[in-house]
Amino acid sequence: MGALYMGNKPVLKVDSKVSIVMDQMLRLLHNCGLPLEDVDFINSDGKTMNKLLLEANPRMTLFTGSSRVAEKLAVDLKGRVKLEDAGFDWKILGPDVLQEDYIAWVCDQDAYACSGQKCSAQSLLFMHENWSKTSLLSKLKDLADRRKLADLTVGPVLTVTTDSMLEHINKLLEIPGSKLLFGGQPLEDHSIPPIYGAMKPTAVYVPLEEIMKAKNFELVTREIFGPFQIVTDYKSSQLSVVLDALERMHNHLTAAVVSNDPLFLQEVIGQSVNGTAYAGLRARTTGAPQNHWFGPAGDARGAGIGTPEAIKLVWSCHREIIYDFGPVPKNWEVPPST
Amino acid sequence: MGALYMGNKPVLKVDSKVSIVMDQMLRLLHNCGLPLEDVDFINSDGKTMNKLLLEANPRMTLFTGSSRVAEKLAVDLKGRVKLEDAGFDWKILGPDVLQEDYIAWVCDQDAYACSGQKCSAQSLLFMHENWSKTSLLSKLKDLADRRKLADLTVGPVLTVTTDSMLEHINKLLEIPGSKLLFGGQPLEDHSIPPIYGAMKPTAVYVPLEEIMKAKNFELVTREIFGPFQIVTDYKSSQLSVVLDALERMHNHLTAAVVSNDPLFLQEVIGQSVNGTAYAGLRARTTGAPQNHWFGPAGDARGAGIGTPEAIKLVWSCHREIIYDFGPVPKNWEVPPST
Amino acid sequence: MGALYMGNKPVLKVDSKVSIVMDQMLRLLHNCGLPLEDVDFINSDGKTMNKLLLEANPRMTLFTGSSRVAEKLAVDLKGRVKLEDAGFDWKILGPDVLQEDYIAWVCDQDAYACSGQKCSAQSLLFMHENWSKTSLLSKLKDLADRRKLADLTVGPVLTVTTDSMLEHINKLLEIPGSKLLFGGQPLEDHSIPPIYGAMKPTAVYVPLEEIMKAKNFELVTREIFGPFQIVTDYKSSQLSVVLDALERMHNHLTAAVVSNDPLFLQEVIGQSVNGTAYAGLRARTTGAPQNHWFGPAGDARGAGIGTPEAIKLVWSCHREIIYDFGPVPKNWEVPPST
Amino acid sequence: MGALYMGNKPVLKVDSKVSIVMDQMLRLLHNCGLPLEDVDFINSDGKTMNKLLLEANPRMTLFTGSSRVAEKLAVDLKGRVKLEDAGFDWKILGPDVLQEDYIAWVCDQDAYACSGQKCSAQSLLFMHENWSKTSLLSKLKDLADRRKLADLTVGPVLTVTTDSMLEHINKLLEIPGSKLLFGGQPLEDHSIPPIYGAMKPTAVYVPLEEIMKAKNFELVTREIFGPFQIVTDYKSSQLSVVLDALERMHNHLTAAVVSNDPLFLQEVIGQSVNGTAYAGLRARTTGAPQNHWFGPAGDARGAGIGTPEAIKLVWSCHREIIYDFGPVPKNWEVPPST
Repeated sequence: MGALYMGNKPVLKVDSKVSIVMDQMLRLLHNCGLPLEDVDFINSDGKTMNKLLLEANPRMTLFTGSSRVAEKLAVDLKGRVKLEDAGFDWKILGPDVLQEDYIAWVCDQDAYACSGQKCSAQSLLFMHENWSKTSLLSKLKDLADRRKLADLTVGPVLTVTTDSMLEHINKLLEIPGSKLLFGGQPLEDHSIPPIYGAMKPTAVYVPLEEIMKAKNFELVTREIFGPFQIVTDYKSSQLSVVLDALERMHNHLTAAVVSNDPLFLQEVIGQSVNGTAYAGLRARTTGAPQNHWFGPAGDARGAGIGTPEAIKLVWSCHREIIYDFGPVPKNWEVPPST
Repeated sequence: MGALYMGNKPVLKVDSKVSIVMDQMLRLLHNCGLPLEDVDFINSDGKTMNKLLLEANPRMTLFTGSSRVAEKLAVDLKGRVKLEDAGFDWKILGPDVLQEDYIAWVCDQDAYACSGQKCSAQSLLFMHENWSKTSLLSKLKDLADRRKLADLTVGPVLTVTTDSMLEHINKLLEIPGSKLLFGGQPLEDHSIPPIYGAMKPTAVYVPLEEIMKAKNFELVTREIFGPFQIVTDYKSSQLSVVLDALERMHNHLTAAVVSNDPLFLQEVIGQSVNGTAYAGLRARTTGAPQNHWFGPAGDARGAGIGTPEAIKLVWSCHREIIYDFGPVPKNWEVPPST
Repeated sequence: MGALYMGNKPVLKVDSKVSIVMDQMLRLLHNCGLPLEDVDFINSDGKTMNKLLLEANPRMTLFTGSSRVAEKLAVDLKGRVKLEDAGFDWKILGPDVLQEDYIAWVCDQDAYACSGQKCSAQSLLFMHENWSKTSLLSKLKDLADRRKLADLTVGPVLTVTTDSMLEHINKLLEIPGSKLLFGGQPLEDHSIPPIYGAMKPTAVYVPLEEIMKAKNFELVTREIFGPFQIVTDYKSSQLSVVLDALERMHNHLTAAVVSNDPLFLQEVIGQSVNGTAYAGLRARTTGAPQNHWFGPAGDARGAGIGTPEAIKLVWSCHREIIYDFGPVPKNWEVPPST
Repeated sequence: MGALYMGNKPVLKVDSKVSIVMDQMLRLLHNCGLPLEDVDFINSDGKTMNKLLLEANPRMTLFTGSSRVAEKLAVDLKGRVKLEDAGFDWKILGPDVLQEDYIAWVCDQDAYACSGQKCSAQSLLFMHENWSKTSLLSKLKDLADRRKLADLTVGPVLTVTTDSMLEHINKLLEIPGSKLLFGGQPLEDHSIPPIYGAMKPTAVYVPLEEIMKAKNFELVTREIFGPFQIVTDYKSSQLSVVLDALERMHNHLTAAVVSNDPLFLQEVIGQSVNGTAYAGLRARTTGAPQNHWFGPAGDARGAGIGTPEAIKLVWSCHREIIYDFGPVPKNWEVPPST
């Protein structure tokens, strides 16, 4: 829609798994008066789309998807892209322990609502040790246990199979000190085809020192687009280690700093770069109530979605018209050349 | 300076022909208090710089220079670039003939000041036939004839040799109907080394129909970074041809539409995309009095220079912090999962 | 509505002639969910309302109505008012004669649509002598003649009686050189009660020199909230007299400068202060298509209506919160007093 | 200066006690190039100035001074004023006790720097009971004791005599429960003429319940433009009483809420209206480092000083020019009247 508002003629391609939804959306728009020729809609595999882009050479391509394809497109299109790529989103619980029930509920929703299939889902939870002493983890477990297939509070995972999630979990559990907090098992009594995933909401604890080891970091920070999160804890003296971890990740989409201590917030926000960062006791990584800018930061190619500013950034560009009608001063004479 | 204002640590590289100037500029800044470690300055050839960029992987590279290198950099740096590339800048004189002396003087300055060595120099002049009937061309000739080496109103051309300019002129004069309006000869009695260019201010007329032919278009719109311009004319009925010519060019830096007729201005500005366009009787392509945005348009990678908005576009990015301190409502209870 | 958006609790009073309309509007709002206690609505005469204002001492009063009451309120409320007072709105036709039919139609609508009962209605038309030579006036007459009671293109005048309009016209016709251009007669065959006005669309010509005379100026610039306008003409050399006339009026609501000559527009706009001024060939005094700021200018108490900026100006105020959470530098020590 | 930037021709009047300073300032401006005719400067008593204002009928008057004169001017000038009137500025210390030395020093500076002669000086300090238990008050006393005439950290009071300050203090001390915290005596060994004041930095404690009594409130909240403040304390359960006190005051210039608890800040800021409010542990009432908006809030006539927004509010007004050059559509025909 943003592309249209700015006067472009967009070509739209969505993942084939959801193209039936977009098809209906477009028909709805046509019904509401959108001229048929204003948007082109293509259903194809990525290879064909890539060929189309290379030949059509569009002025701008907005890509939402995996980092791997994003990097390839940036080269193929010589930088005429904006990217809203993968999200491995973290949440930090600060030293001030307050409103335990509320925060447990937000964590559960951030990690497992829509079965974790949001690019803003909470993937890694850093708890201050003050929180480790509370019943937060057991509350998280209780909330995860409430979720069931019957009311679709868990459901099929579109892009990761059960087996690959299990394999990922097993690899994580080989890290010394790591342990399964809850979940870790396939859903039972379902008819979800095996090309989709079907997992119980899962959390795996990994010690902070192990996360930071070069051999583990990439594994721990791999995005699983399903009901899965990593949990770890830290002492006040380890905050700089946590900040290092944030710096080493490269998908800076959303983040949450759960604390009402302004100095703690300043320190974490001032040393991280996620594009949409929520701060304060009620911070979440996903599903914020108002429609604000949504996109990564720290990358010149970062796209934004949803707000007027984001739409202008991606779908328009600055152009400056300077009007100078005169008049020429009455006694003007030709000055010397320069 | 913009990169610094936004809190970056820039690495600066300039063309080796002018690096001595930048060296002095930096020393001046250091004298004024710039910390030594805030800017790195490198003197190297382009190849070495390219290697450095690939290895350092900077978050953003602002490139000012030729389109060829710009396209290579966009690929090498996977789109983390902003470009302010070549300028082949046009001026259109509209149907309303007014203030002949003033407009002749602006044309002379736009094309030949600094010996035409500005990326905003006027390279192609479209005259409405009403102007062809005036003495504008003879006035342009008189103004060009005033320029002389003695007072540096003409001078050495840093990046194009005399021979390549002469060769370019000769190729243009082979186009049917084209003719030399003035200039076309090397400067005399000078000590400019042959690695630089030394030409009299030159204008070549090429008929509009010939410009539009596929075999001529690229030749006519080649940027000569020296005291050189193409001149052509058009009838009212040919305005759409002129607009087609603008659309076919691909370096959309500056432009001028010289007219005080709002409807004419609307039509030309509404159908062209140059980044910095001057409109009105006193329109120029270069040297505008105030410090406004300066950069190309119509390309997602287009850089801007000089204004706060341009600096933010190139050297910063949007980041959104949403504060939500609470309070959690007094009687809040855990809602169902979703 | 603006007062509500900004979080105020407004008390609403409208003229008793239209209070039945506002009553229904409020009921509609209540039906749409407006809490009953959010707006108070009072039906009273002005005297009672004045008493209420003095006792309630509201933080802000927005007054739309006559200048006389406006000045009284400004004193009574010690300046806590914003005023959108009477409009005696002018239109100037510039020297460039173009699109005669179109401009005649806009003039007719501006002066006589809604029987001239809009505070933005055209009350005084300055024609450049180039327009006097055209058939504009006869076209205006034809357009006025189309209007009839049957289709309500003329109708009752709520605040001025037929007799007072006739008396005003007669006084104007006593000015030397003035003449009735068209209209000037009561409507016929109607059942409009005599407390309302019922006049044919009327235009009276008064020579510019006569308008400027001290004894005539106030009479000529009296606002008649009905289907009535003054017409005059001017030579190019008299533009400064026209500008003087604009300066002498004191209700600077809307205005129109009908010309596509940027230099003429600059001169008139630069020397007048009306709050909402339309410029260009299609300029009108009323009924502009988009919802823009609407209000007088040049008076610190001037209100605006309709736009976010206007709403903030009238119904909110600037307040600045400076957050300084610290931290206090580690080695901070108490400095000397100052 | 703001009035000048916006293109007005201001008439400047300052208190005769400081007119010699402004005289020199103007001469400096003239030396720097200010045209002599751009500003008029008048030295007169208030009565003469009032007469001048009534006769000249300026478009805007910015008044800085007492509330009494402000109200008179608002009536005399029929609301064409902006007021930056008296400041009786409060500071609230919240429940979180931190950085005692720092906060004591800020309180001392806010109340007694320039001998308290700033319209933003701290006049009333509300301490949370957690602070009463600390050594804050004794630190305030120590800091006040450091101040001496020799280094001008106390000095003459221009507008209040020693006797009237002593009388004010004595009246306050008659309130049950009130006591002198420190100061309360005239300066010694000085040559300050008796038309000025000469007092030691003084603080008087008054219990919160007594402040709120109708018979005391006006006395306690009387602004003393000198080195004087009221101190009181409150329990968490009494915050609403404190907020009531803020609401009852009518000069809402500056304020400070000293706390790093976001929920406490929200509550106090959300229920008060001071124009320039500082929040956070380092909050002050005066002398903030950056040049921000400075002015009262909650009054439609409130002026602002110092920022571009303030200058535009006071010295300019909104004016909207809508350009509509056309073109008129090709097949346009006169539509029916409306």
